[in-house]
Amino acid sequence: MSNIAPELIASNKCFDGWLKRYKHVSTATGTEMVFAIYLPPQAQVQPVPVVYWLSGLTCTDENFMQKAGAQRIAAELGIAIVAPDTSPRGTDLPGEHDSYDFGSGAGFYINATEAPWADHYRMYDYVTEELPTLIEQHFPVTDKRAISGHSMGGHGALICALKNPGRYASVSAFAPINNPSQCPWGEKAFTGYLGTDPEAWKDWDTCALIAKADSKIPILVDQGGADDFLTEQLRPEALQVACTSAGHPLELRLQPGYDHSYFFIASFIEDHLRYHARVLMED
Amino acid sequence: MSNIAPELIASNKCFDGWLKRYKHVSTATGTEMVFAIYLPPQAQVQPVPVVYWLSGLTCTDENFMQKAGAQRIAAELGIAIVAPDTSPRGTDLPGEHDSYDFGSGAGFYINATEAPWADHYRMYDYVTEELPTLIEQHFPVTDKRAISGHSMGGHGALICALKNPGRYASVSAFAPINNPSQCPWGEKAFTGYLGTDPEAWKDWDTCALIAKADSKIPILVDQGGADDFLTEQLRPEALQVACTSAGHPLELRLQPGYDHSYFFIASFIEDHLRYHARVLMED
Repeated sequence: MSNIAPELIASNKCFDGWLKRYKHVSTATGTEMVFAIYLPPQAQVQPVPVVYWLSGLTCTDENFMQKAGAQRIAAELGIAIVAPDTSPRGTDLPGEHDSYDFGSGAGFYINATEAPWADHYRMYDYVTEELPTLIEQHFPVTDKRAISGHSMGGHGALICALKNPGRYASVSAFAPINNPSQCPWGEKAFTGYLGTDPEAWKDWDTCALIAKADSKIPILVDQGGADDFLTEQLRPEALQVACTSAGHPLELRLQPGYDHSYFFIASFIEDHLRYHARVLMED
Repeated sequence: MSNIAPELIASNKCFDGWLKRYKHVSTATGTEMVFAIYLPPQAQVQPVPVVYWLSGLTCTDENFMQKAGAQRIAAELGIAIVAPDTSPRGTDLPGEHDSYDFGSGAGFYINATEAPWADHYRMYDYVTEELPTLIEQHFPVTDKRAISGHSMGGHGALICALKNPGRYASVSAFAPINNPSQCPWGEKAFTGYLGTDPEAWKDWDTCALIAKADSKIPILVDQGGADDFLTEQLRPEALQVACTSAGHPLELRLQPGYDHSYFFIASFIEDHLRYHARVLMED
């Protein structure tokens, strides 16, 4: 499927580069998927590396591109940014649209094994394999990749990097769901998508993956100190413990006063993009 | 009414400053009004000058603060930004919600004289008098003011500055409706709010105001070259002619490839804020 060029649905000039939205039929999800790509001005001259951004609950490909202010920095650094949607759309499975934290807008970047989700909710295959293949076939980018995300998408970024040594040059996250096996959002999603056996959840839990990770890709995390979800859902202390136990390199920055919103992301996205660029631009 | 402190309805830390939304009962409109204010970190130490931002059709106080990326620059420069709503809300006048370009979300920053609008649609009095008075009473700001805006709000910024010599230290606009008396958006709005006599429109038309302006406040305008509304609605050539005829200082920059969206605004807002800061920071 990836040989079929995606179809352009919107285009906006931004910081001398172009923000474009495309749709395509995904093999992984069996649905039409929409993604956004920001191509910096440098991409008109030579291929550029890519930062993949995974958004949080209720988001689409649009939130980050509209609210984070990332294009300015990407245009300076010469990096592309790709933002996929957060779940398959248009399937109308039973209960799919009933809650904000499960089903549509809440794919959790995993491959579901439980019916009826297993046929379509394969966002992990989509973001780690199908989408990069398609991006690298059809756009002026290199195969140097970094990955980042927010909340559910921070969890997604971390598991994608940890499960695929070498595929991503660097990883970071904003307010990630660090230990989904042990928080209400994650327990609900994993039960629905993966079933009730917590053993099956370990393949999709950052803290569990760090305990057994062969490679030690450094992790950068920013976490707002006034985030309403900090204690019950995000649990950065679990990430800290897991990394300390495993000797995994972690820079966990608590940012006092910041909440869970895109105003928090906008305030620190420059740090993250510069962090990724340093690694991506290495020879 | 301005002695009653506005009521805080939301607060987000952003670039080490604070974005806050408030509601208050407006004397000018006779309704509850919502506005947003970004206070940069410097405002915790001493009063800072204010840039007022007027948004375009369909917008509220939120669009600019979410999408323009202005807080980063305001935090660096030490300027506050205030963004009012684009019309009164909650009155449910006949036909008020029937179209995107008249009534709710489309107050055009004028004082209506026609029934039933005249009782509430007094956005000019609101943004030029009531709101600055309230802001200067209740927030750590100086009485140094600049004004800018987009599309309908660009028109608003220009007429507010031109009609009030000395009240604003500087003015700029993104893709303003330059000559509302001579374009479909403006003709519809002015007919509805002001009646059918075009003589009454001249007090609210930038090009007409420039022809008779006593003071010559310099005008900075950015206009996207790929803006869908350029030819029929915005007509920057009319502004150019008016300024040339009157000897009014104008820097009109055509930005090739840019459209009417906030991606255009985000790309050039830094230039505008630095432009305003240079004037605002003068002794």
